Amino acid sequence: MFIHSLSRCLRTSSNSCLSIEIKRALSNGSFVRQLFEQTTSTYTYIIGDAKSRNALIIDPVITTVARDVQIIKQLGLHLRYAINTHVHADHITGSGRLKTLIPECRSVISKSSGAKADIYIENGDEIVIGDKNQGLILECRSTPGHTNGCMSFVWHNGSSVFTGDCLLIRGCGRTDFQQGSADTLYTSIHQHIFTLPDHFTVYPGHDYTGQTTSTVGEEKRHNTRLTKSRQDFTQFMKELKLSYPLQIDKAVPANMICGVLPES
Amino acid sequence: MFIHSLSRCLRTSSNSCLSIEIKRALSNGSFVRQLFEQTTSTYTYIIGDAKSRNALIIDPVITTVARDVQIIKQLGLHLRYAINTHVHADHITGSGRLKTLIPECRSVISKSSGAKADIYIENGDEIVIGDKNQGLILECRSTPGHTNGCMSFVWHNGSSVFTGDCLLIRGCGRTDFQQGSADTLYTSIHQHIFTLPDHFTVYPGHDYTGQTTSTVGEEKRHNTRLTKSRQDFTQFMKELKLSYPLQIDKAVPANMICGVLPES
Repeated sequence: MFIHSLSRCLRTSSNSCLSIEIKRALSNGSFVRQLFEQTTSTYTYIIGDAKSRNALIIDPVITTVARDVQIIKQLGLHLRYAINTHVHADHITGSGRLKTLIPECRSVISKSSGAKADIYIENGDEIVIGDKNQGLILECRSTPGHTNGCMSFVWHNGSSVFTGDCLLIRGCGRTDFQQGSADTLYTSIHQHIFTLPDHFTVYPGHDYTGQTTSTVGEEKRHNTRLTKSRQDFTQFMKELKLSYPLQIDKAVPANMICGVLPES
Repeated sequence: MFIHSLSRCLRTSSNSCLSIEIKRALSNGSFVRQLFEQTTSTYTYIIGDAKSRNALIIDPVITTVARDVQIIKQLGLHLRYAINTHVHADHITGSGRLKTLIPECRSVISKSSGAKADIYIENGDEIVIGDKNQGLILECRSTPGHTNGCMSFVWHNGSSVFTGDCLLIRGCGRTDFQQGSADTLYTSIHQHIFTLPDHFTVYPGHDYTGQTTSTVGEEKRHNTRLTKSRQDFTQFMKELKLSYPLQIDKAVPANMICGVLPES
């Protein structure tokens, strides 16, 4: 029988208590908050170190900066870095606007993107917030293919990877503009994402189907694009008939200068 | 200096290893997958017990059942229960369609909802999937106010609560139809949600602002509705000028019979 008419007591078995303690340990250490921008189906992530209250944001969108700043303030966080996984073509980054609202925040992007930012990162760099030994560390992995400058960020302690537009849930970023290369993308995903442990959570840059997360293991098994051979994958990507991104002519120039619009 | 040009080695400090082990322990035990339906901004949750591979789904939507079934199959899960937090007014539940696709799945709703289902639950009941001692347990809490039959589900081991349309992120469900009562909702949230530990994750039934989760502590401090006095809250809810739900005349009758449409 699956229903037990017990009163609302806390679970007291040793197994249950252990799990509660485990969760507390995690929540005391660091946390991620996933946010969504509906017009372009973009995911933004706020990652915080609970001890120092330092935080970073990945892929903020200019139109949702006010929301994000309110959350950052309500959580009592000090935003140190606004990081872009790459130069976006579908929306304007919120980095520039965030910097005007939170002056201590510095913008971060890969050196190979060619875009303007306060700090440039390369493959193998680590982004640290909070204490070096006990804080939050993101390992930067260069994962080009959607664009030349695409980076993914591995949070080992959080068993997670933020993949931007490299690997999407059951999909991947398009490769038909902005230095795109299906062959390069295939290498990036197989060498730098699929080599992570299967249980690592995949936090993508977009999703168009209402899915929020996946895991490395799931994508290795069920991503219909990436389970193809290299040859079939590149052929498949070549034959995709995707429409021209609506905002690309405005978004890319703005994102090359940190999302600072001419009128602002 | 925040950037360290280290190679991509796994973190090896004791602190880091501990966190990785903690995460693995959690991922081996059970997991939640959050899913979104864009037209009505509804969240659906698949919760799985990794050991038994038994699973349940909370608030499935009829239009996204195909997606949900694909995920359930790809994850190798056995769907045991399709649970509705209440009789929805804005969308038709996917419970009926799920039952036709997965015959062993049983529909669940509160007894006080008056709706048809295979299993009826009441305040204090527990929903168990997997082993009773090591599996996944959801405690059912009666939280009326949006409707008479609203239930919230507390997953103690996951330090989480699924609040349906009772508590939303920085908001709450409307109380102007379907036996709604602002006074009753105020009691439900303060007595049955806000008494949970501050770090518990809040998984809401909807969000219209691109937020995915919150915590009990955040809502206690920053929910502008629920931080009001009872009198101010009921007055505020009374003065809300909300439009008539587009699908209510179709959705409520269908949801009273488990989302089985006349034509199906």
